[in-house]
Amino acid sequence: MNFWIIAYFMGWIIEVEAISMLIPMFISIALHESDVWPWFLIIILVLAPLGFILTRKRFRRGNFYVREGYAATGLGWILLSAIGALPFFLSGRIPNYVDALFETASGFTTTGSSVLSDIEALGKGLLFWRSFTHWLGGMGVLVLILAILPMNGGYHMQLMKAESPGPSVSKLVPRVMDTAKTLYLIYIALTVTMILLYRISGMPLFDAACIGFGTAGTGGFGVRNSGMADYSRASQILITIFMYLFGVNFNFYYLLIRRKFRDAFKMEEVRVYVGIILVNIIIVTLVIWRFNYREEGLLYSLHHAAFTIGSLMSTTGFATVDFDTWPEIGRLMMVLLMFTGACAGSTGGGFKVSRLMLLFKEARKEMHMLIHPQSVRPIKQEGKVVEHSVLRSASNYLTIYLMVFIAAFVLISIEGHDFITNFTAVAATLNNIGPGLSMVGATQNFGFFSVGSKLVLTFCMLAGRLELLPMLMLLYPKTWTKHY
Amino acid sequence: MNFWIIAYFMGWIIEVEAISMLIPMFISIALHESDVWPWFLIIILVLAPLGFILTRKRFRRGNFYVREGYAATGLGWILLSAIGALPFFLSGRIPNYVDALFETASGFTTTGSSVLSDIEALGKGLLFWRSFTHWLGGMGVLVLILAILPMNGGYHMQLMKAESPGPSVSKLVPRVMDTAKTLYLIYIALTVTMILLYRISGMPLFDAACIGFGTAGTGGFGVRNSGMADYSRASQILITIFMYLFGVNFNFYYLLIRRKFRDAFKMEEVRVYVGIILVNIIIVTLVIWRFNYREEGLLYSLHHAAFTIGSLMSTTGFATVDFDTWPEIGRLMMVLLMFTGACAGSTGGGFKVSRLMLLFKEARKEMHMLIHPQSVRPIKQEGKVVEHSVLRSASNYLTIYLMVFIAAFVLISIEGHDFITNFTAVAATLNNIGPGLSMVGATQNFGFFSVGSKLVLTFCMLAGRLELLPMLMLLYPKTWTKHY
Repeated sequence: MNFWIIAYFMGWIIEVEAISMLIPMFISIALHESDVWPWFLIIILVLAPLGFILTRKRFRRGNFYVREGYAATGLGWILLSAIGALPFFLSGRIPNYVDALFETASGFTTTGSSVLSDIEALGKGLLFWRSFTHWLGGMGVLVLILAILPMNGGYHMQLMKAESPGPSVSKLVPRVMDTAKTLYLIYIALTVTMILLYRISGMPLFDAACIGFGTAGTGGFGVRNSGMADYSRASQILITIFMYLFGVNFNFYYLLIRRKFRDAFKMEEVRVYVGIILVNIIIVTLVIWRFNYREEGLLYSLHHAAFTIGSLMSTTGFATVDFDTWPEIGRLMMVLLMFTGACAGSTGGGFKVSRLMLLFKEARKEMHMLIHPQSVRPIKQEGKVVEHSVLRSASNYLTIYLMVFIAAFVLISIEGHDFITNFTAVAATLNNIGPGLSMVGATQNFGFFSVGSKLVLTFCMLAGRLELLPMLMLLYPKTWTKHY
Repeated sequence: MNFWIIAYFMGWIIEVEAISMLIPMFISIALHESDVWPWFLIIILVLAPLGFILTRKRFRRGNFYVREGYAATGLGWILLSAIGALPFFLSGRIPNYVDALFETASGFTTTGSSVLSDIEALGKGLLFWRSFTHWLGGMGVLVLILAILPMNGGYHMQLMKAESPGPSVSKLVPRVMDTAKTLYLIYIALTVTMILLYRISGMPLFDAACIGFGTAGTGGFGVRNSGMADYSRASQILITIFMYLFGVNFNFYYLLIRRKFRDAFKMEEVRVYVGIILVNIIIVTLVIWRFNYREEGLLYSLHHAAFTIGSLMSTTGFATVDFDTWPEIGRLMMVLLMFTGACAGSTGGGFKVSRLMLLFKEARKEMHMLIHPQSVRPIKQEGKVVEHSVLRSASNYLTIYLMVFIAAFVLISIEGHDFITNFTAVAATLNNIGPGLSMVGATQNFGFFSVGSKLVLTFCMLAGRLELLPMLMLLYPKTWTKHY
């Protein structure tokens, strides 16, 4: 393990975080939140020089292999959350540090699970910071660093691999730095358009920005105790549309920009994503119209089915209605969508549509081989033959995912509560959704969990966002040995 | 698809089933159950000649490939259940045919889930038949046919593969017929010893035999409405021991007979199996002593923890206490054991210890490869390098298993009920356990499910017993095409 290079990246992460805190600090100052802004200021004054020292070139020496990339990512995200929690904790608005850590990790990992019952009590400066972590975490802080940092050497790809979601990272353009830049430009353009539209639809600017960050990162933090229910029907429809859009693989937008419309609409993953959405919307609309919203009507049912499905499948976690009150089949479909997740290469979490497609194709091949044992038909995706190592990783991802899920499920069950609460709490955090069912339902929060369980769930959020391996690597003793 | 050879095997299955019905018929005659025994007689008189015709040599022509092996196994088990249900249905003791089918499939697949609330009302003839299906299904009917049928041609192995549990079938001895014979001899010897011991411990002979069949096949049907609670402490301890013994890979016993004690006790799967058992017994004993049976004491807690864990891990499903009343962590551990299952090459169901070991080793290798990308260390099990195809099958098994689980879960959720009932109903049938939690807990039964859900769960039992592919093959259109 090359600790120098890891310190170097930690320096950059600290620097990015210090700069990011400037906006919420100014908001706090403008609103005279005198118990909040001095802490932002102090933190920035401590972090900025520290980051400056660590990012000196002399730290950048030695070799950088896959394991350094994964360890830097895992440690970087822990550091990001640990520091980001400080304004909440030091201002006393979240008096318990573990709560503040949970809330911040939930922000950066774009989960959106909260320990707070009264979020408006945070004040606008902290609310902004809380939502802004979604935006930073959505596309990835290391991807941001790659986009702005002129780097040479072959280690860009290791970081990109470790932080980007999906079974295989496809570079949009040959150079990693350009890929990172392109991704961020698309991200910024979409975000700005969205915030403007939200504003036009009647949201106050502060709400439009914060909800915009939450949508862009597929996070799920709101800024009002009433959640999304207060916004106009038009705003809710816009939120629905943008939740679906941010669950799409960003390759799609890149192809659109390059005017390769045919290639874009031929993308297998996007088609399956749309297919799953449509099937779910049709079934759920009919079910909840029949059993829940007979009086409110079919259009009302369609509106809330589309919102909820978009919210869960993109792993955002906003809620306009409490789907815990739906019939069992509707609830189960929502739980399954929590696992499906969004497209690879989007800001969404979960298992990812393309990874599910790979597993499905492998299973189909297994059946096919029984009938035609001599068959050597390779598995294809997006028109290309899938490499053996990608297939193996997808299968192993499922195994590791289940192992982490079960371990977390057991650990939080020690404290008690019921099966559904524990099951969906792990599902909601590991898939970066936000709310679950029962005691962690859309109208509830995670505040009642013990400190130990909160730490387990915080681990789940980070593991889910980074697709497991960077976090698990940190627990694996061999990671810390010398290179041989 | 070669339909001739499939008809030939169906003929043998019919023949075996007709002969097997003789004992329950004689019991029925002896006890003057005049509404039952004539139906046994009629069924036997119809089946025997039908089977005789189908097993004529002229049916045995054409080629026999993997797909014929799997299709014969899948269809054979459906036929076995469909015919085995007739005595229950025709006698009117189970007035609904789907209920009778569920009960019989539950018997042959060694699941032990029941639709009946008053099992004693069946009468001893039918109770014997119900328990005897466990014994027949435990080691496998096709394995029995292989053991008694002088066959040539290379297709023995296809049948053995399709019916025997575990990630890879290891032949004990070079010839398949001898392997099948050896397995049945061990099975019979263990069963007879067990029944004698049960009798000595105070059980009536009828109970000893029926509970013996249920233990040997890891089934779970009892013969009394009180379940296992009425039997003496000594009997319960014997049942516990034999449940664990029948969950062990039969290779172990073969090695013991061959006096290869060192090899036997070095078996990796057996060691892990014992390890899982011990860890669970210790934790669960302490938990239930602390929270449930403080007054009854530590020994009482140990007794029931050992019984329940043996019952679930071997996938038998007998119950002395209702574990649905245990604390959440205890309940969850029991649910997880339902998935773990017993050893490969045992009569138990579930995911199988050796398959879990393979998945775990693959996941560990994935981590290891991140740290040492050039490493080419192969995965070993039981001292041998595991072939790539076996690893791939284990991974795909997990995928297909989850797909079947989720499909069944969704289908039975349509009818309503709660999450835990539906989840554990599928878990209990797909893993061939018997009872689940909540509405399908150890003191409840599956009678309340709709006809549609009962058929879905019957499919799960058969799919679980045959390790998915033989049943799924039947639904796959290409199975029925001509060879090219």
